[in-house]
Amino acid sequence: MSNTFGKIFRITTFGESHGPAMGVVIDGCPAGLEIDMAFIEQELRRRRPGQSKLSSQRKEPDEVEVLSGIFEGKTTGTPIALLIRNRDARSRDYDHLAKAYRPSHADFTWHKKYGHRDWRGGGRSSARETVARVAAGAIAKQLLIAQGVRLTAWVSSVGSVSLDAPEEAWDFADIEKTPVRCPHLPTAQKMEELILQVRKEGDTVGGVVSCRIEGCPPGWGEPVFDRLQADLAKAMLSINACKGFEYGSGFAGTTMRGSEHNDLFFRAGLDEVGKPLIQTETNFSGGIQGGISNGMPIYFKAAFKPVATIMRPQLSVDEQGEEVLLEGRGRHDPCVVPRAVPIVEAMAALVLADHYLRSQNSRLTDL
Amino acid sequence: MSNTFGKIFRITTFGESHGPAMGVVIDGCPAGLEIDMAFIEQELRRRRPGQSKLSSQRKEPDEVEVLSGIFEGKTTGTPIALLIRNRDARSRDYDHLAKAYRPSHADFTWHKKYGHRDWRGGGRSSARETVARVAAGAIAKQLLIAQGVRLTAWVSSVGSVSLDAPEEAWDFADIEKTPVRCPHLPTAQKMEELILQVRKEGDTVGGVVSCRIEGCPPGWGEPVFDRLQADLAKAMLSINACKGFEYGSGFAGTTMRGSEHNDLFFRAGLDEVGKPLIQTETNFSGGIQGGISNGMPIYFKAAFKPVATIMRPQLSVDEQGEEVLLEGRGRHDPCVVPRAVPIVEAMAALVLADHYLRSQNSRLTDL
Amino acid sequence: MSNTFGKIFRITTFGESHGPAMGVVIDGCPAGLEIDMAFIEQELRRRRPGQSKLSSQRKEPDEVEVLSGIFEGKTTGTPIALLIRNRDARSRDYDHLAKAYRPSHADFTWHKKYGHRDWRGGGRSSARETVARVAAGAIAKQLLIAQGVRLTAWVSSVGSVSLDAPEEAWDFADIEKTPVRCPHLPTAQKMEELILQVRKEGDTVGGVVSCRIEGCPPGWGEPVFDRLQADLAKAMLSINACKGFEYGSGFAGTTMRGSEHNDLFFRAGLDEVGKPLIQTETNFSGGIQGGISNGMPIYFKAAFKPVATIMRPQLSVDEQGEEVLLEGRGRHDPCVVPRAVPIVEAMAALVLADHYLRSQNSRLTDL
Amino acid sequence: MSNTFGKIFRITTFGESHGPAMGVVIDGCPAGLEIDMAFIEQELRRRRPGQSKLSSQRKEPDEVEVLSGIFEGKTTGTPIALLIRNRDARSRDYDHLAKAYRPSHADFTWHKKYGHRDWRGGGRSSARETVARVAAGAIAKQLLIAQGVRLTAWVSSVGSVSLDAPEEAWDFADIEKTPVRCPHLPTAQKMEELILQVRKEGDTVGGVVSCRIEGCPPGWGEPVFDRLQADLAKAMLSINACKGFEYGSGFAGTTMRGSEHNDLFFRAGLDEVGKPLIQTETNFSGGIQGGISNGMPIYFKAAFKPVATIMRPQLSVDEQGEEVLLEGRGRHDPCVVPRAVPIVEAMAALVLADHYLRSQNSRLTDL
Repeated sequence: MSNTFGKIFRITTFGESHGPAMGVVIDGCPAGLEIDMAFIEQELRRRRPGQSKLSSQRKEPDEVEVLSGIFEGKTTGTPIALLIRNRDARSRDYDHLAKAYRPSHADFTWHKKYGHRDWRGGGRSSARETVARVAAGAIAKQLLIAQGVRLTAWVSSVGSVSLDAPEEAWDFADIEKTPVRCPHLPTAQKMEELILQVRKEGDTVGGVVSCRIEGCPPGWGEPVFDRLQADLAKAMLSINACKGFEYGSGFAGTTMRGSEHNDLFFRAGLDEVGKPLIQTETNFSGGIQGGISNGMPIYFKAAFKPVATIMRPQLSVDEQGEEVLLEGRGRHDPCVVPRAVPIVEAMAALVLADHYLRSQNSRLTDL
Repeated sequence: MSNTFGKIFRITTFGESHGPAMGVVIDGCPAGLEIDMAFIEQELRRRRPGQSKLSSQRKEPDEVEVLSGIFEGKTTGTPIALLIRNRDARSRDYDHLAKAYRPSHADFTWHKKYGHRDWRGGGRSSARETVARVAAGAIAKQLLIAQGVRLTAWVSSVGSVSLDAPEEAWDFADIEKTPVRCPHLPTAQKMEELILQVRKEGDTVGGVVSCRIEGCPPGWGEPVFDRLQADLAKAMLSINACKGFEYGSGFAGTTMRGSEHNDLFFRAGLDEVGKPLIQTETNFSGGIQGGISNGMPIYFKAAFKPVATIMRPQLSVDEQGEEVLLEGRGRHDPCVVPRAVPIVEAMAALVLADHYLRSQNSRLTDL
Repeated sequence: MSNTFGKIFRITTFGESHGPAMGVVIDGCPAGLEIDMAFIEQELRRRRPGQSKLSSQRKEPDEVEVLSGIFEGKTTGTPIALLIRNRDARSRDYDHLAKAYRPSHADFTWHKKYGHRDWRGGGRSSARETVARVAAGAIAKQLLIAQGVRLTAWVSSVGSVSLDAPEEAWDFADIEKTPVRCPHLPTAQKMEELILQVRKEGDTVGGVVSCRIEGCPPGWGEPVFDRLQADLAKAMLSINACKGFEYGSGFAGTTMRGSEHNDLFFRAGLDEVGKPLIQTETNFSGGIQGGISNGMPIYFKAAFKPVATIMRPQLSVDEQGEEVLLEGRGRHDPCVVPRAVPIVEAMAALVLADHYLRSQNSRLTDL
Repeated sequence: MSNTFGKIFRITTFGESHGPAMGVVIDGCPAGLEIDMAFIEQELRRRRPGQSKLSSQRKEPDEVEVLSGIFEGKTTGTPIALLIRNRDARSRDYDHLAKAYRPSHADFTWHKKYGHRDWRGGGRSSARETVARVAAGAIAKQLLIAQGVRLTAWVSSVGSVSLDAPEEAWDFADIEKTPVRCPHLPTAQKMEELILQVRKEGDTVGGVVSCRIEGCPPGWGEPVFDRLQADLAKAMLSINACKGFEYGSGFAGTTMRGSEHNDLFFRAGLDEVGKPLIQTETNFSGGIQGGISNGMPIYFKAAFKPVATIMRPQLSVDEQGEEVLLEGRGRHDPCVVPRAVPIVEAMAALVLADHYLRSQNSRLTDL
């Protein structure tokens, strides 16, 4: 059951890194949504390896085949199945790893759990699995765009290089202008230099992805366990290499006083139907109060550790506990963070799409 | 569906702060587990308001009535229903808030979502709801203890006062010795002073709770969406006032190089059945790799914002968007972090108990 | 997880026959629904034992305490918890059964499954459990009534006495006029005589309950696995003593030709919004096509076996496989079918309420 | 969410009759199960159209591509994705139906529910969807066979021709000897004649499939809502054209007295571990008591209506409510019952496999 995500808008993914294909089944997307296939392909291109010298050189065209659920350009309400063939798997690169446990990978834990595993390229524990999430997220995004909701993620730090420039100095339109996906070009430049340096050293480095969601109306998210932030946290921590999540004031908020942290309400005018439009003066709440969106921008951060595969020799053990010397091989990213940007957006979109549909059943007068 | 948590060991909670009772139904606890009722009561005492001058002065005895599922001291496999009556609700304290939206509370969002709400004491958005989680967590803990798993949480910072002393200088046995629940007594003293100071100012302050889980065997947790860390993250972010989660190296790990961050495996001897015991030299992974426990200690942190209710006047608006002046009233905590400790443990225990049961079905040879 | 039913409108029940209380938590009921408590009590009276000489003489007032979810007479969107105390449990009646397996009861299978069981009055396998379903069903019915949906169940056979009179000869208004709940009074009279005769013989007898649902609009129910009839079948077969389910033409329909069985569509005029109103000339489909309601009346039957507890001596075995002679004791129904009527309605209402809410998300233009 | 079935061993199906492919993702199959691909293909051959003159002449090779989850002949614990391409869809046969509602099909209800539908060959409402269930069921069967559980289904009636010969006169080994799948060859002969006659008349006929499950140990199935019979009922009623379900004594049992119907326990010797083996003298319970298997054979029946597509002109209406004359076209079965046999087995296997895994968590001493 762990390969399914979401309650009403729900996806089930499948596929291993070096198996024939990756795929996803989306169940619960309402009928009548127009689907732009070019948009799905564009999203996949953003995640694709080999897109720049900053990322793995595996060449995957990531062409999507729609197997069901879309007819004459629109969703039918039946499951949408998307298939992406693996084209450039080089399993031989992994032959020497069939019995060894790579440090900080899933080899050891999967072996302990399942007894039997597909070790080629990490099998299903590979980040290749996220291609299915991005494809599904591209459907979720189209559902959200139709509701006026926009999601934007960007790289806010790589190693110790962080985006400290004030927001006035940068522009979302610049995010896709550099391979590093930082909206402040001078900082992007520094990040890129760091990644190339680290790569040259045969090493890897981590970073942080930030995300902002605008246009979300009040009332999405559910109290108690399925709070919007709880589902976002789960979504982020389910991404390979993610080590932390914070929203709104986050960890820094713990040092504030309540009197500073409280977001005061005020009447900002009238909404579209002539009712009072209520907003907050500050937004330490990160757009979510009591687990439910309040109409202000939602924002959060996700921390990513340095990629475990390095191009240096490392000592490890094999299944018998015998020492083995591993040499870095295969095609890997020196820094996964720029490619994590579309994955973060996709997972956030899946959470939002689910809560959008769930919010339809909150009260009787809406029904 | 948002009041249910867990897949196999699953709880459903109910109750409002000023309604007649809080409660929980636990479905999926295996039959034959001996239940120590005194342990459940002890856990509730740790969460209880009025336990010290650091917390709300609401007086709740929090007596638990077992309505079903336990017979002759053992679980029967049927749902365990636990009921805790509310004894000290003073709804009049909230009369003046029936139409107003308190800053950084759930009043506004719940009203927008449901149209109709129980505004007394926050209704179900109140942290009083967590009493049911702690009661259920006390059952989960007993299931885990029987597997040799121990969970310990403590306060690692209050405002800017953080526990920086090396671990050698403190002792888990000291956690419950001070009302602040920090295992380093000199730091605890400083934290306590800060909370009392903040309280005197009619203000509130946040902090961080750390948690460590020891004795968890390799193989718990599931890949892809239900990674152990993803479920822990969701569990933490579902707690009132929680703003962030990190495990293992967390946000700080983003600045490390892969070559430093990788946890190297080594053979630490033989396990109980004479097989090689494999451990890691460092534990930046936080005991979880690929979403699955690796046998090393699991550790994480949860950030809590300052409580929104302050004892100072604040401007806000009412349902019509008219400005209102709110005066702090009711009985609230100046710092919720010490009382969050047993809640963090309870939620972590619920996640672990669920994954323990889920792990039973991983492979055929175990079955 | 087996004590939860429904996906959006979902109930979780708890309690054992001779424990302190029975109860139910309803999660997912929309906010703003007005709740008539008298209606809930009336439904419980219809299920209650001791209501006539045809049923068990256990005296249970079945008073409902609302623990949460309803405020100022309306649902709030939070979980609705209902508690019903057990008042007249006489556990001593069962002392002699603590180690014995009663024929055709759940004693043996529960013991094999759980190892440890509450044997008093059948514990949770007792039909007493259904009191919680009827209470929850009474909430579901109020949600459905607000949508114009009406459910009616009645006894259509007891043993070999079946309601064969044409529908013109009977009246739904007569169902509650006799304790047997058959809408044709002369047949009801014969059924009652049969039950009293069987009771005098210390024996029991089975029967069939029919149910009709009117006012259900087209579009409820979902294709593939959660067809409306599939969920109704599961609901019925989850009731104690239920052995079969059929809807529409049912088993008899298997002997028909397609040319007879097909329900031809015709235009029956205009609907409320001026669109063509399409109906079928016959209704062998039972109001459901492709798993989805078509606007015609839904109807089905549920078969109930004779109650296993008889007032005659029976040979059985105990936990060690030793032969024991059981004498009928305790307070039981000679025929469960009349009391099954409100249970059938309640379970059907729970299915319909769930699918009503699920139908809100079928297509974009509705949202 | 309606395209997913099962809780631990769970399948998600996708695909439309005239789309590019049908498929299924199985999540929750334990690692280490050896998979015989030839067995899967054999099961699909049993369901395949065109296998005899009794069935539709659509030619589908139904070749299965394994996309994930099986490595070196064994399951890995990751999702098993199976893909079956549609090869012989002739959508033009349906052009004239794009706007019309075929009687007793899902055209009308799907249109009302979704607004937008794939009308070619019934889209996803087509029985072609069941190919994915049979493929998944073939995996479930292999899991069950490893536990000693065997499932056998057969045709017990076609129209008014029913298998009345005593069980001694027939043989399960004969089921696959005739295209009609009745284990009593003289009755099979009569059934076949009836189907050919009906086909000649351009008509269709229904029938009943019986199923028996042997080797199921006591303790599978869960009390209250997920009783084994409840999940089997849902499974059967989720199959296209199924109108009823009964198990054990079924509808006929309603006319029996409790004293006849009760299955008396006796000690049948010792089991494999030397404990008393307890069985029942009769088996009106159908191998299930209190929702849980008791170790006796489980048996049930499923009723199937006559196929709605007939080769005769029928009056109907179109989307505007205008009268249209439909002429029977396309390739359809005169009687679906023989092909339903492997589908019934597959669905029963999916239920049993799920409950087998669920039973692993019933009690502590087993864990």
